[in-house]
Amino acid sequence: MKNPGVTDFLKRSLDEDIGVGDITTLLTVNQSTESRAKVFSKVDMIIAGMPFFSEVFKIYDPSLSVKACKSEGQRIEKGETIATVSGKSASILSCERVSLNILQRLSGIATLTNRFVEAVKPFPVKITDTRKTTPGMRYLEKYAVRAGGGDNHRFGLYDGILIKENHIKASGGIKEAIRRAKKGGHHLLKIEIEVTTINELKEALKEDADVIMLDNMSGQEISEAVSITREQKKVLLEVSGGVNLKNVRSLAERGVDIISIGALTHSAPAVDISMIIE
Amino acid sequence: MKNPGVTDFLKRSLDEDIGVGDITTLLTVNQSTESRAKVFSKVDMIIAGMPFFSEVFKIYDPSLSVKACKSEGQRIEKGETIATVSGKSASILSCERVSLNILQRLSGIATLTNRFVEAVKPFPVKITDTRKTTPGMRYLEKYAVRAGGGDNHRFGLYDGILIKENHIKASGGIKEAIRRAKKGGHHLLKIEIEVTTINELKEALKEDADVIMLDNMSGQEISEAVSITREQKKVLLEVSGGVNLKNVRSLAERGVDIISIGALTHSAPAVDISMIIE
Amino acid sequence: MKNPGVTDFLKRSLDEDIGVGDITTLLTVNQSTESRAKVFSKVDMIIAGMPFFSEVFKIYDPSLSVKACKSEGQRIEKGETIATVSGKSASILSCERVSLNILQRLSGIATLTNRFVEAVKPFPVKITDTRKTTPGMRYLEKYAVRAGGGDNHRFGLYDGILIKENHIKASGGIKEAIRRAKKGGHHLLKIEIEVTTINELKEALKEDADVIMLDNMSGQEISEAVSITREQKKVLLEVSGGVNLKNVRSLAERGVDIISIGALTHSAPAVDISMIIE
Amino acid sequence: MKNPGVTDFLKRSLDEDIGVGDITTLLTVNQSTESRAKVFSKVDMIIAGMPFFSEVFKIYDPSLSVKACKSEGQRIEKGETIATVSGKSASILSCERVSLNILQRLSGIATLTNRFVEAVKPFPVKITDTRKTTPGMRYLEKYAVRAGGGDNHRFGLYDGILIKENHIKASGGIKEAIRRAKKGGHHLLKIEIEVTTINELKEALKEDADVIMLDNMSGQEISEAVSITREQKKVLLEVSGGVNLKNVRSLAERGVDIISIGALTHSAPAVDISMIIE
Amino acid sequence: MKNPGVTDFLKRSLDEDIGVGDITTLLTVNQSTESRAKVFSKVDMIIAGMPFFSEVFKIYDPSLSVKACKSEGQRIEKGETIATVSGKSASILSCERVSLNILQRLSGIATLTNRFVEAVKPFPVKITDTRKTTPGMRYLEKYAVRAGGGDNHRFGLYDGILIKENHIKASGGIKEAIRRAKKGGHHLLKIEIEVTTINELKEALKEDADVIMLDNMSGQEISEAVSITREQKKVLLEVSGGVNLKNVRSLAERGVDIISIGALTHSAPAVDISMIIE
Amino acid sequence: MKNPGVTDFLKRSLDEDIGVGDITTLLTVNQSTESRAKVFSKVDMIIAGMPFFSEVFKIYDPSLSVKACKSEGQRIEKGETIATVSGKSASILSCERVSLNILQRLSGIATLTNRFVEAVKPFPVKITDTRKTTPGMRYLEKYAVRAGGGDNHRFGLYDGILIKENHIKASGGIKEAIRRAKKGGHHLLKIEIEVTTINELKEALKEDADVIMLDNMSGQEISEAVSITREQKKVLLEVSGGVNLKNVRSLAERGVDIISIGALTHSAPAVDISMIIE
Repeated sequence: MKNPGVTDFLKRSLDEDIGVGDITTLLTVNQSTESRAKVFSKVDMIIAGMPFFSEVFKIYDPSLSVKACKSEGQRIEKGETIATVSGKSASILSCERVSLNILQRLSGIATLTNRFVEAVKPFPVKITDTRKTTPGMRYLEKYAVRAGGGDNHRFGLYDGILIKENHIKASGGIKEAIRRAKKGGHHLLKIEIEVTTINELKEALKEDADVIMLDNMSGQEISEAVSITREQKKVLLEVSGGVNLKNVRSLAERGVDIISIGALTHSAPAVDISMIIE
Repeated sequence: MKNPGVTDFLKRSLDEDIGVGDITTLLTVNQSTESRAKVFSKVDMIIAGMPFFSEVFKIYDPSLSVKACKSEGQRIEKGETIATVSGKSASILSCERVSLNILQRLSGIATLTNRFVEAVKPFPVKITDTRKTTPGMRYLEKYAVRAGGGDNHRFGLYDGILIKENHIKASGGIKEAIRRAKKGGHHLLKIEIEVTTINELKEALKEDADVIMLDNMSGQEISEAVSITREQKKVLLEVSGGVNLKNVRSLAERGVDIISIGALTHSAPAVDISMIIE
Repeated sequence: MKNPGVTDFLKRSLDEDIGVGDITTLLTVNQSTESRAKVFSKVDMIIAGMPFFSEVFKIYDPSLSVKACKSEGQRIEKGETIATVSGKSASILSCERVSLNILQRLSGIATLTNRFVEAVKPFPVKITDTRKTTPGMRYLEKYAVRAGGGDNHRFGLYDGILIKENHIKASGGIKEAIRRAKKGGHHLLKIEIEVTTINELKEALKEDADVIMLDNMSGQEISEAVSITREQKKVLLEVSGGVNLKNVRSLAERGVDIISIGALTHSAPAVDISMIIE
Repeated sequence: MKNPGVTDFLKRSLDEDIGVGDITTLLTVNQSTESRAKVFSKVDMIIAGMPFFSEVFKIYDPSLSVKACKSEGQRIEKGETIATVSGKSASILSCERVSLNILQRLSGIATLTNRFVEAVKPFPVKITDTRKTTPGMRYLEKYAVRAGGGDNHRFGLYDGILIKENHIKASGGIKEAIRRAKKGGHHLLKIEIEVTTINELKEALKEDADVIMLDNMSGQEISEAVSITREQKKVLLEVSGGVNLKNVRSLAERGVDIISIGALTHSAPAVDISMIIE
Repeated sequence: MKNPGVTDFLKRSLDEDIGVGDITTLLTVNQSTESRAKVFSKVDMIIAGMPFFSEVFKIYDPSLSVKACKSEGQRIEKGETIATVSGKSASILSCERVSLNILQRLSGIATLTNRFVEAVKPFPVKITDTRKTTPGMRYLEKYAVRAGGGDNHRFGLYDGILIKENHIKASGGIKEAIRRAKKGGHHLLKIEIEVTTINELKEALKEDADVIMLDNMSGQEISEAVSITREQKKVLLEVSGGVNLKNVRSLAERGVDIISIGALTHSAPAVDISMIIE
Repeated sequence: MKNPGVTDFLKRSLDEDIGVGDITTLLTVNQSTESRAKVFSKVDMIIAGMPFFSEVFKIYDPSLSVKACKSEGQRIEKGETIATVSGKSASILSCERVSLNILQRLSGIATLTNRFVEAVKPFPVKITDTRKTTPGMRYLEKYAVRAGGGDNHRFGLYDGILIKENHIKASGGIKEAIRRAKKGGHHLLKIEIEVTTINELKEALKEDADVIMLDNMSGQEISEAVSITREQKKVLLEVSGGVNLKNVRSLAERGVDIISIGALTHSAPAVDISMIIE
């Protein structure tokens, strides 16, 4: 039961594809035929998701054997073998699409994340995901971000306090919002708040916010924010909004602690992976 | 109960994000505060997914009111208002991320699909999706493809017979595979088979396949395949593999009936949509 | 996970009967007592459902051992042993009723189906089921029909297009209904339509229906329908409504392709099977 | 939540039939079309199951209106209207089969039960069901037995103690089994035991059983059993096994208290009911 | 599947505590580290719940090994080892709190029950629980009552008829209520009724109630009730309301058959049990 | 869907008690009878749980009307009316026990919590719960602690990092454990660590722990810990273990920030609340 939600997700994914039965396979392939299938990359990539890929086959038919040829987070070149699956041909074929759909998506996320991580390499900054994940796949996608060398932001609305612009509006201001959060939150949670101007930043610092998110600020403003907060050792600065592979390094150079990027999970293209029965 | 699976999916998506509670909102926003939030596009797009977007809010708090300003499949320009949500501020904020995550993804799919559909416009060819969808979201993603002007391929392994290369290998050949499928499938299902050469095409035609998928064939081979099958009125030709916005029109010109494209669902980038409390 | 729905169904069935506990067995039988139980037929029958029968015991107590003495679809005479179950007496007794309820029902269906199949033996016609199955048991009942030598019709509303009288009324006519279905259905589905007169048959043929169901037509009309459609090789004719063991052979003689019979699943009497601890 | 299990059962039944969608109706019927459908009997019957029939439509589309023209347990003649359903044609058509499958089965059970009840009318005997019900439908089928004028036996293994032949064998005898049950059962449960001979009956009486089931005894033995137990006012006698419409009256005449009949639920043929859009 | 509800309960309990992950353990403990943990009592107690305690670990990580050093219902002194758990340290730590929460509560119930049972030892009276159990834990709590030497009352509203004061009011009187229950209940259920005066007792006796609950009666009234009913061998007397360790023996002395005590389950303090990694 | 888990919990609780039906009520009370029931306290208490109490009735029968006469967290004296429930008598009776079981338990927790809160009133210290809650009821019990004036600790293992003695052992020391947690935890979480000696406290301070739990320390050690940490404004001190109503005030006096008490949820006796039909 290490990840009960994940197993349920994989079962539902199989059920979504197979329903009352994979009729093509049932009709054309003998139940007793066995074979070995090779899974290989058709592009360069960072691999992520092999444990879930394997679990799909094991859920459907525990007698199948899946061997991973690569470790999670490893760089793989076009044409390399990623894994082999052995056992009943019919079982392998019925699981092919679902297992590949997951592996292609997670490896796509790891691959994109890794490009961002490489881009900021010399700087002491964390590249993190956001809550802009695929509904139903947050746990897996945040796993893929880590496999690609990134860090995770909070998992959901329940394990971190992040006061955003709309909260500030609805609660009556930065001061009011931070004070309420400090009073009511349990004592193991920090308080993060989103600001859009240097004045707001100063107000947040005055109220002792633990983390401050600079939302869509210009490079110059970010630098100013860094210099203002540098003396308060415990305050962390996070940049968010409009980050891409072109500008990420210059953001890192300005000295922020965290760069969070929604595109890691909402817009990473799937990488191309195929399975062939040998 | 029109789409029971969809409602369950939306509930799970909310639960994934909110868990035991949206602590930020609970602590900073008064339960009695009401407001109106505006949802607007930050890029040009085709909109898709408004019914699911609305249902998210209704599931969480039936007293909320959601008004769509645009119809499904409509083209929207950057800056235009897509919808408004009115009612308890706290409820609106707790649903913001999940509802937008869905709308951004589905509109991204509709927008990409529409570009393909426009590209082949003068030709009598269908642009269809594949089974390379996000696990758990197939129903919604196939809906988005239709909203973008595309057509659906089969929904899963249970509602269509498509004999692929791996099935042919595992069953002993094209002839054997088609004959088995014809004998065992129920009488409302057609038989589609994947071929990679003109010789295989001819073998499939001899066995009376209903639909033939030309897998990664060259343009010249595709033209040959079209001219061979043109006399058999009832046989449909589907092209699949390596289709992109640059080559799709030339494929259409060659006279095939269906072009299926995995990227519609596995690699469409999310479009950018924001919500702001007024 | 070969048939996840089936396992859930069997678990629910056990839960329905046992609830918080089989008090009689808990109170009267020592947990350590082991025994062997014999399952035997009290009438002649065709057996169907042994895999589900076995799974019930395995779900409840994986340490039980079930041995089938007969193959699925085999003819069994009154008094013959069908299976033996060995292991903890208490576990065997707690599963007895549920496992037998399933085996008796499915064997009843297989037995009745087989009588129809035998009745039309010399003719190239398929005997199929309908959607008139027991709610919750469709997958199992369609399995039993195959075990009895019959064929399956579509599994549900999702994997086949069958335009019935009420659809024709609601959509404005045969022509309109077929054209809509052809335009919107995915390209792996055929179109079947129900007709009640020769004129309707002709209209359906004109619109290129793939399969035509003759609903409650007289024998003479059926023969006429067969002769009209014979030249269109690809059109299949299905007869439905009022079929029984007395008239089924005469229907087959008239040359139709499919005879579908609701009674196979909605009115097959259970066959009598007993379990005795030796 | 009056019957939560029933609602879940009805939802699963709809899902079993409709899956990802009723494609025929979606394609051929306009969403805005409304109509009225008439449900009528094609044979004489006792009606049972109208609340479940109605709930199916309400679950799928709460805007539908269902009007019952008959009361539960009422006798209906061939051709009479049982109910009308009004609202969106598409919703009505998508629910037609599931709702009728339930109504036909339950009315079949009520009709058969009623024939047994009528057959023993002058005698103070209860006609009851058994646990030989359709897996998943016990609650509904026991409801149908009551609608037909019968009584229910225990609902499952959890709400009644009934020591059967196999329990006696596994526990070491009638005396031992009754004593154990008396000691461990909670104080609101009676003890019933199955006997096959007059000697066993006497042993059970000596141990103060509350109810005694006479299993497959001859008529003469049953009469002897009745005369032996008549003096013990509180002991009830139940007859079970091989009861049919021909012999049920003679069993009643012998003075037993309860006649339980498995066929009421496992072999009642469905009655024929149709729905037509007007 | 011996107790499917229990396994689901334990899974939900783990999920309630662990959610998306035990972050402390994931971050601080190496996945490969193994250890042995000792579970020991910090007070004198009667132990109950070891099978559920073990199952928690097995559900989370089937490779863990749990050894019970004591039998269910055994008296344990402060400081004694109750069990050991061996295997992956991370798995042991993640399950520690949930497994102990269950064991502490159930042992608390067994310990309190045992004090009542000891207090009435020489008398032929049963100490039973009520339906005042923790929502979701009835099956486990009733198990703990038995482990402490007590007996169970009915499990729920579905397996026993107990007409309480509010039922009598709502149905129009004792006579009416008993008659209705006798007529409609299945023949394996007894009828219990609650009375508050000697007159009500007499009315219930006249209607042939099987069990009579004396609700909050004085000691003298209870004695009178006993002497009135003594001649009717088959009627059982149950005392309920206001029972505590001080007065329970005097109630037993008066000759009642059953004393039911809500506090056994609703107010038993948890006993203190610790786990330490060696 | 404000608290989906809670609604599911309440449904399961009703199902646990009612199962296939509340036979007593079904048999004795007319479905059409309506009445008003009064809920009143039999002891002095702090009330908590009215929203859940109400929801139980609404889930079972939406036509019932529940009126709360008291606010959450309000002090109530023996004999006062807490709420009234009006509508179908049968529905009220079937929900009585489950709704009261919840209200009695939660009010018991609020009442005990409030006694602790009152005991430390002049001091700036938080009284918090722990994870020693009833499995399945954590959300409700933590709610009751707040209603009683207390504060919550983390909700589970997923929303707070608390390194306990067993983690320190398994990870190789305080320094190692804190460093790992700091590196891997997301940036909105603080780090709490449990220490048992002043030396361990100093080590934890050196590693910059955010919160330090003093486990079972003597009063004198606690005072020393307070004086050592006073200069580090941001470090919070939590006391845990062996806290009771007698010693809680003296702990508060020593200047700690948080006192966490497992007994609030694992050993609070239920308060006595009754329902009577008027």
